[in-house]
Amino acid sequence: MAFAPDGDTLATAGADRTVRLWNVTDPRGPLPLATLTGHSNAVNDVTFAPRGDILASAGFDGTARLWKVTDPRRPLPLPTLTGHTNAVADLSFAPDGRTLASGSFDGTVRLWQVAGAHPTGAPAVLSGHTDRVYAVAFGQDGALASGSVDATVRLWDTDHERVAGRVCALAHPRLTRAQWARHIPGVPYRPPCG
Amino acid sequence: MAFAPDGDTLATAGADRTVRLWNVTDPRGPLPLATLTGHSNAVNDVTFAPRGDILASAGFDGTARLWKVTDPRRPLPLPTLTGHTNAVADLSFAPDGRTLASGSFDGTVRLWQVAGAHPTGAPAVLSGHTDRVYAVAFGQDGALASGSVDATVRLWDTDHERVAGRVCALAHPRLTRAQWARHIPGVPYRPPCG
Repeated sequence: MAFAPDGDTLATAGADRTVRLWNVTDPRGPLPLATLTGHSNAVNDVTFAPRGDILASAGFDGTARLWKVTDPRRPLPLPTLTGHTNAVADLSFAPDGRTLASGSFDGTVRLWQVAGAHPTGAPAVLSGHTDRVYAVAFGQDGALASGSVDATVRLWDTDHERVAGRVCALAHPRLTRAQWARHIPGVPYRPPCG
Repeated sequence: MAFAPDGDTLATAGADRTVRLWNVTDPRGPLPLATLTGHSNAVNDVTFAPRGDILASAGFDGTARLWKVTDPRRPLPLPTLTGHTNAVADLSFAPDGRTLASGSFDGTVRLWQVAGAHPTGAPAVLSGHTDRVYAVAFGQDGALASGSVDATVRLWDTDHERVAGRVCALAHPRLTRAQWARHIPGVPYRPPCG
């Protein structure tokens, strides 16, 4: 279960395959707002994006589902995130809300771009664990930790620019304008590690 | 595992009965900072207080442990929280960092006052679940949710003043100064629901 950032809405993940939203403004009398269906097996985890506009759910069915919950009485289903080959155990949004990490019993972690509430393209697949992943957590600054039954926690750097910077630091000095003109004539000068 | 709020420190909970702290400023090369021992069985969960100064760990041994981690290289053990009669599954700090909730396989949730980094007095014991509690989560504004294998999520209001206000609203009108003087002579006037 998870509270929305404003504390007024609670999402619960059910073994009955549903996700339920509750208005908990008055803790004495929670009011049911909506029942979200779609998962074909128990729901393991739910989490809100930092701004509270998107809810993600992790399923034993191997999918993660997204809902737009700007109005929690009328959640709108967004495209389902498919690809994991075993249960999705845990989810974590990056602090900027643009990336969702999923950890799965298939041993992988996947990174989904969910900016604008519409997942785009194939996820990045983070491989390395040798057994089930049961927990994922973003820190501030783009670091992602994943915990596995293989008894390791792995750290991943998800900051694209920082990673690109390292790759370029390791690569040969960038092509000069003259080299570019000689090797790639007719193409505007735009060295990859500029 | 859990990141400290500043994102520079990661705490990991181990099946080897230890909690480990890592400097993860550089995700490529996490540096071990400390190994926290004391639990006599696997560690189920770790969580940082909102200000990052205290780390709490939940043990299969039925205890929760607290460490002062202002300097994560030199964690200082604080008094152990004992009372649960089965594994502690999950922990959550209230937003103000003064209360820690523990959920246990003994079916109860306990609330510990941890202000000033020193747990004081006996915890409040929240009973009602009829099977193992596996998750607890504070929302903003003092609401606490607990999830159980009994297929229910329970909500608890932990705001003392709000609860007291309700009790007083249900109670008889408060004692007048004259009634107080008649019934409790010699004691300064301080009606309980003043």
